[in-house]
Amino acid sequence: MQTNVVKQLNQNMQAVMQTARTQVLAKMGTHLTVAEKTSRRDLVTNVDHSNEDFLVRQIRALDPVAKILAEEGTGDQVTDMTGHVWIVDPIDGTMNFVHQRNHFAIMVGLYVDGEPTLGYIFDVMANKLYAGGPEVGVTLNGQLLAAPADVDLSAGLFGASAPLLIQDRFNMQTVIAQSLGARIMGSAGIQISQVLAGELVGYLSYLRPWDFAAGRVLAESLGLVVSRVDGSPVNMLSSGAVLIATKRAQRSILAIV
Amino acid sequence: MQTNVVKQLNQNMQAVMQTARTQVLAKMGTHLTVAEKTSRRDLVTNVDHSNEDFLVRQIRALDPVAKILAEEGTGDQVTDMTGHVWIVDPIDGTMNFVHQRNHFAIMVGLYVDGEPTLGYIFDVMANKLYAGGPEVGVTLNGQLLAAPADVDLSAGLFGASAPLLIQDRFNMQTVIAQSLGARIMGSAGIQISQVLAGELVGYLSYLRPWDFAAGRVLAESLGLVVSRVDGSPVNMLSSGAVLIATKRAQRSILAIV
Repeated sequence: MQTNVVKQLNQNMQAVMQTARTQVLAKMGTHLTVAEKTSRRDLVTNVDHSNEDFLVRQIRALDPVAKILAEEGTGDQVTDMTGHVWIVDPIDGTMNFVHQRNHFAIMVGLYVDGEPTLGYIFDVMANKLYAGGPEVGVTLNGQLLAAPADVDLSAGLFGASAPLLIQDRFNMQTVIAQSLGARIMGSAGIQISQVLAGELVGYLSYLRPWDFAAGRVLAESLGLVVSRVDGSPVNMLSSGAVLIATKRAQRSILAIV
Repeated sequence: MQTNVVKQLNQNMQAVMQTARTQVLAKMGTHLTVAEKTSRRDLVTNVDHSNEDFLVRQIRALDPVAKILAEEGTGDQVTDMTGHVWIVDPIDGTMNFVHQRNHFAIMVGLYVDGEPTLGYIFDVMANKLYAGGPEVGVTLNGQLLAAPADVDLSAGLFGASAPLLIQDRFNMQTVIAQSLGARIMGSAGIQISQVLAGELVGYLSYLRPWDFAAGRVLAESLGLVVSRVDGSPVNMLSSGAVLIATKRAQRSILAIV
């Protein structure tokens, strides 16, 4: 896409994200309908559905020829990354949304012929919108965000997931021992935004495409690295363990896992 | 103390906490001097010291005959809980303060002849001040805070500490497996405030007196329970594993640990 088209789309999508946040906040004051998907720890609510419907409608209006991969299935069956592919997570951290009314995110990513192009992570309760991409830079609430320092694992805090830590998958306990400590928020969006902000030197978890599509765009735009745990490139249409980290922390972690 | 004296002290201390926050925020824009205490994970900064000095001076002015137990040693040698005992943590979560500039708290508790009387937890970056005690109620930023629902472990998220979880101390892995999931923030003040807010059904960690003095006052005022892991009462002058939880979650956890 031409740069001015990306810029305009970025402005429009930030407005869409603001409206999405306002609607989600309004619905939080009403009764939530909560259903279990695959387990008691995998929830979906009426707000996930209504917010996905809203985002998909808005994206179709802005980019009619695009394909949309959305967590709750409102979008298209996306089988390849050619053309414009939007990846939507209407509420990331639904467990937190239901039980904390805090620490959840709205996320949208755009890939053009497989290239990370635009990404949005909205930490709803902290009112922090991370937005942008490689062409337009990354902003936090409209202010240009500086790239986080390239801090090594031993000098920073690391974002973990409790199941991987308890089971010591990928030698996570050694990763944590080498770091300054583990932090677990229960939301990929929140934890990836903490890597963007330099609060964590990395985050490793088992993720589905919508969990890291937005984060990958933003992270790579800020000089962070996104890979599988063997260092190989991620595939935006499959799930697996994904590492988002500073360059130095990635090297240290790949030597451990 | 007479109720009107407690009320006045509560008003005055909330003003002190606001000033402390303003000063800490101002100092965050300047160079931090960071030193290790017992290990690379046990830090103290110039801001811990300056904020403790400030809090101790303010408490002495408000309550001249009191004894003060303060983390960094500015206060008194406190050997018993008779009379007025203030317990001060100028920056709780110093690791987060240094490496995240987020997720840390200022905490103060007052005990009168051993009785929990007033408590303050200020989540500085979220700008949330939890304040009060059994006589005056608990407020969040001046608004009366309702007691959290008495939710059982199986229906809520649980606040853990990474070392206890990795080492499976007190069968923490079983506690987490029975809960809806683990959350780890790296600050007792932040995690206890999340129990107060109903975001977590409990929190278990190895704590020193200043880590839970304020939280105990606030938690007990809201119908939550604070105990050692065998269910016995806590001692405000010693360190150990402390559980802050809803009544139901406490029963479930004591049956596991």
